[in-house]
Amino acid sequence: MVLGYLGPRGSYSYEAALFYDGNSVLYDMDNFYDVIEGVENGRLDEGILPLENSTEGVVTQVADALLKAKQSVIKREIVLPIVHNLYSATGEIAEIQYVLAHPQTLEQCRDFFRTNYPGIQLTPCGSNSMACVKAKTEGAKCGAIAGSSAGKLHGLKLIRGAVQDNSWNETRFVVIGREPASMTGNDKTSIAFTFFTDRSGCLYNVMKIFAEENINLSRIESRPAKSQLGKYFFYIDFAGHREDARIQQILDRVSEKTDFLKVLGSYPVFESAKG
Amino acid sequence: MVLGYLGPRGSYSYEAALFYDGNSVLYDMDNFYDVIEGVENGRLDEGILPLENSTEGVVTQVADALLKAKQSVIKREIVLPIVHNLYSATGEIAEIQYVLAHPQTLEQCRDFFRTNYPGIQLTPCGSNSMACVKAKTEGAKCGAIAGSSAGKLHGLKLIRGAVQDNSWNETRFVVIGREPASMTGNDKTSIAFTFFTDRSGCLYNVMKIFAEENINLSRIESRPAKSQLGKYFFYIDFAGHREDARIQQILDRVSEKTDFLKVLGSYPVFESAKG
Repeated sequence: MVLGYLGPRGSYSYEAALFYDGNSVLYDMDNFYDVIEGVENGRLDEGILPLENSTEGVVTQVADALLKAKQSVIKREIVLPIVHNLYSATGEIAEIQYVLAHPQTLEQCRDFFRTNYPGIQLTPCGSNSMACVKAKTEGAKCGAIAGSSAGKLHGLKLIRGAVQDNSWNETRFVVIGREPASMTGNDKTSIAFTFFTDRSGCLYNVMKIFAEENINLSRIESRPAKSQLGKYFFYIDFAGHREDARIQQILDRVSEKTDFLKVLGSYPVFESAKG
Repeated sequence: MVLGYLGPRGSYSYEAALFYDGNSVLYDMDNFYDVIEGVENGRLDEGILPLENSTEGVVTQVADALLKAKQSVIKREIVLPIVHNLYSATGEIAEIQYVLAHPQTLEQCRDFFRTNYPGIQLTPCGSNSMACVKAKTEGAKCGAIAGSSAGKLHGLKLIRGAVQDNSWNETRFVVIGREPASMTGNDKTSIAFTFFTDRSGCLYNVMKIFAEENINLSRIESRPAKSQLGKYFFYIDFAGHREDARIQQILDRVSEKTDFLKVLGSYPVFESAKG
């Protein structure tokens, strides 16, 4: 199987791709759009994308891109802990003057550096892997924050593990493909919808359907719509699979109450290795 | 009045600060936290922060920081169009090899460059103002994407205006202060809440209160909680002011249905200059 992920090699998406299927042929892509396009045009069998982070919230570009996808559906979710480590070429904290990482990673470690190393300058960089490359070439004065795959891949020395401010830092990745996942009995469905007019109670009417059927919503989100189609898109994840007759009936009822509805996919609920 | 904003000078927050109160003493701060801290400790009278962008969604760090604030409340909202322009020292597109901007700005212009100038390399940078400084010093080969304030401030020449992919690009800023805004008759209230246990229907029970009272929700958002307090925080904006007896009653009812409730502020609904 050919599996595309958001590169470069060593990225957190790379770690998720290995976790999902270490035997597949891994393609690193430059951006989210290329992963989805690769699945749409058949160059890739499947693609893996970060959708939501416990600290940063939803990855908006991915959510928007999935909304526009023609054939790709979510067929799996994978939730992985994200551990940011501090590396350098020499492994000596005393020599570090500045630390490179992707801006989102820097945000997630800001309090740590402010408290422990206020003199170190946090410098944004295109990706954590790029940060590792620079740390390797620039030497002792330059640190890089990255996951353990990237640190190892670029031959850096660990200064300190888990430098993120929040010990609970997870990212939810989704695997997309052209074929939907079949029902397992413990599934989740992701939908997106909008209303052409913003009336009081529009969203409530949709939520009422789920409440009446006693269906748990695991996520709800409103996103400003990029077009004039509606003011907001709503994203909801709920328990159940679209092939289930009862869920199909619920989706029909939701469709009646909304002006646009897209089922992004039905897929098995992720069960962590722990439990 | 001393008004803090997310700097540097020329940033979109700077433009919002000028729009809000051109006569105040403007302080540029390094990050969101310093703006809130400045208001909390009295160094600033008020602070202005970006809360939501039509393309990128909510600015998660700001939403989270407001949740933790002790005294600061939202006292005003300001919605401004965001226009990204392309600048360089010489104003010649033919000479540009790479373009610098904050990663979020680059994301908002990606399709434009992919379609029109696929050979130009998009390079992330700490802020659009920093991009302008670099474009000025690095000369003809380096472009910068920024708002018109930043472009002018750094003496750059305009290559092309409005290079963002979506012509509708607005940012909603909030002004925070220690004193709440009084009722005007056309107000909005922002609240955040969570549930200790995630049962089906928890959120529905809250929404039911608003639907029964026929109160329009202008925003709803779920954000992964950073602590173990609850799995999600919910953010809701709705029509009305907390000093209104009816709204106070509604807030009491919401409080009964939630395990934690914080009123982030009541403030006048923004009315654009246009209409």
